[in-house]
Amino acid sequence: MSTMAQTVYYFDYAAATPVDPRVAAAMKPYLVEKFYNPSSPYAPAIEVRREYANAKHMIAQTIGARADELVMTAGATESINLAINGFGGHKITTEVEHASVKRAISRGMHTFVEVDARGRVDPRMIAEAIQHDTQLVSVALANHEIGTIQPVRDIARVVSDVRFARQRTGNHTPLVFHCDASQGFGLLDIHVGRLGVDLLTLNAAKIYGPKQVGVLWVRPGVQVQAQVVGGGQELGIRSGTENVAGVIGFAEAAQIATNKRTTEVVRLSRLRDLLEVSLRDNFPGAVFSGHSKHRLANFCHVSFPGVDAERLVFLLEAKQVLVATGSACAANSGTRSEVLTAIGLDAQTADGSIRLTLGRETTHDSIEIASRAIIEAVRQELARTGGVL
Amino acid sequence: MSTMAQTVYYFDYAAATPVDPRVAAAMKPYLVEKFYNPSSPYAPAIEVRREYANAKHMIAQTIGARADELVMTAGATESINLAINGFGGHKITTEVEHASVKRAISRGMHTFVEVDARGRVDPRMIAEAIQHDTQLVSVALANHEIGTIQPVRDIARVVSDVRFARQRTGNHTPLVFHCDASQGFGLLDIHVGRLGVDLLTLNAAKIYGPKQVGVLWVRPGVQVQAQVVGGGQELGIRSGTENVAGVIGFAEAAQIATNKRTTEVVRLSRLRDLLEVSLRDNFPGAVFSGHSKHRLANFCHVSFPGVDAERLVFLLEAKQVLVATGSACAANSGTRSEVLTAIGLDAQTADGSIRLTLGRETTHDSIEIASRAIIEAVRQELARTGGVL
Repeated sequence: MSTMAQTVYYFDYAAATPVDPRVAAAMKPYLVEKFYNPSSPYAPAIEVRREYANAKHMIAQTIGARADELVMTAGATESINLAINGFGGHKITTEVEHASVKRAISRGMHTFVEVDARGRVDPRMIAEAIQHDTQLVSVALANHEIGTIQPVRDIARVVSDVRFARQRTGNHTPLVFHCDASQGFGLLDIHVGRLGVDLLTLNAAKIYGPKQVGVLWVRPGVQVQAQVVGGGQELGIRSGTENVAGVIGFAEAAQIATNKRTTEVVRLSRLRDLLEVSLRDNFPGAVFSGHSKHRLANFCHVSFPGVDAERLVFLLEAKQVLVATGSACAANSGTRSEVLTAIGLDAQTADGSIRLTLGRETTHDSIEIASRAIIEAVRQELARTGGVL
Repeated sequence: MSTMAQTVYYFDYAAATPVDPRVAAAMKPYLVEKFYNPSSPYAPAIEVRREYANAKHMIAQTIGARADELVMTAGATESINLAINGFGGHKITTEVEHASVKRAISRGMHTFVEVDARGRVDPRMIAEAIQHDTQLVSVALANHEIGTIQPVRDIARVVSDVRFARQRTGNHTPLVFHCDASQGFGLLDIHVGRLGVDLLTLNAAKIYGPKQVGVLWVRPGVQVQAQVVGGGQELGIRSGTENVAGVIGFAEAAQIATNKRTTEVVRLSRLRDLLEVSLRDNFPGAVFSGHSKHRLANFCHVSFPGVDAERLVFLLEAKQVLVATGSACAANSGTRSEVLTAIGLDAQTADGSIRLTLGRETTHDSIEIASRAIIEAVRQELARTGGVL
């Protein structure tokens, strides 16, 4: 990454992405010159209101939606909480969801559905978990630790079938399907109609946009209970003077990500595969997690059983290679990743895991450097502990 | 305002402030170069985490608090909702609070206390409204429409007295005092210890910082129930990857506002008084609202009974003078301001109200231009309708 005083090789794009300079440039005028409150009555403010609406339109277009179906939020965590807290009754998610989903759902009656060893949930298990009073199912499009892509369309069909059955039997309990698509945005085709979801979360910070800017798409007709009340700026569901600069930046980032998607997916999956082949060749005992086919193009989750991942991160950092241990959130709290436990990794394997996520500045050279650095570091640790892989 | 292609005379600083160029400059590196997730384990991310913590420390210092007492939010509306929804039982506020406060409090048992004709609440009426199950009192430091400053210290004493009485009688119901100080920040001395409040809301967007960046200060020992859950980044009370650039900008804005406060209050109150004297001399029938002494230095709320304020705003805009009708939120929804009804303005007076709020780019010249423009516009409207003031 050439923006640093010292070159670093960044492999943690799932944790944070740099703001694209075009995005930063698009945002700037809305900080200093076009600072007006979009609710104000005079022409310069009305112009800002129009440009804000247009930015929402641009974001909506990238997912096949309309601007008046978007609730802009302060990021994926708020969108997720808004979706989940917007409903009552029993709620369902999977064992491998992000902490924000699991914690929000844990506040009420809930079921956490198991996943298989590759992190995929079986839609039939979602169907079995649905009770007469279930109001919400929440499954992420792609997992934040291992990159496994879920069968979202099939889950949507399950939810839709139950909804029809309820209508026939006169059960008026709502049932909606929320999908957190923040980790897959820019790498997968996200079209709300084709996915068949009712609520969808996106996050600007994952696609080279600003932090703390997100959206909850709400299918027309779906009633979400407001959490933050006040001026009612976002469809009456979310209040607060609009983050004009942030949403303008999000729109620019969404455009760029959508335009680059097809070529970037090919490029990144090739680079990722090169890395995995190299590590596999050197360490036959290494464990690669996530689905081999249904997986984000930029994810490489690898475990070196018996090696201490925290030491590995430290050794790699000394070689200017920045990687994550598990997810950033889990790493921070010092507990073992629930995702890795859910897919059946034993403690020794889980504790030897690093996550490399590739991005726009990842090149063939940086992959070779990372590969060499990891091989050296793992060998060094194996030599120290007398381990073999 | 020199930043526009055409010079405009902006008098709506209470609705929005331009981001100070120094603030925008401070934010920029944290968008593009220092983009790391503060929870990540490697050195460049740890550096960002430290700088984020330091920004919170700078903000805390300006209100006599500590960094680990601040919950960063997406603006005043979220802070207010977090404070109010963080408690149960009966809640109290005044008739003149911002929509976010009144709507959040309206969700449960509540009392709206009346104010006097100048918009001030009598702390004794707060005392009378407190019930055995009251858990929260929320009063803004300064009103967002008429600028009246509330007797916050006296209200804090009332709340504190009840708390002591409860302790003696074994009533364990919590009772806290939340103060939304977003409108007064930069113009009043805001020190949480001297004010005696338990929860305090501030907003970067009111002090030449970025939009959608706010804080809820929480007195140590006060338990606020979390609303948005997940990674637990903000004291476990609020989750989401930190808005690093926004909080860095907030800190810079808070420093500048604090340094400028004393001189700016003198300068703005002189300019505001000049404007009011001029309007009063020309229209003896004009009504000035807000407290003559306990009022923000930059607020001028004036009513021309019988004149249509919306037409006035339009006529002034044609002369490049930008003012508000009532509050931006109220104006947007097209309903009469609840604040003006609460202070006893009749419909004709309320509907002829404009709010001018001064700020850093307001000069003696711009005050003269605004004064002349208002006099001309009001005379034009009076001539059209045959009115006299």
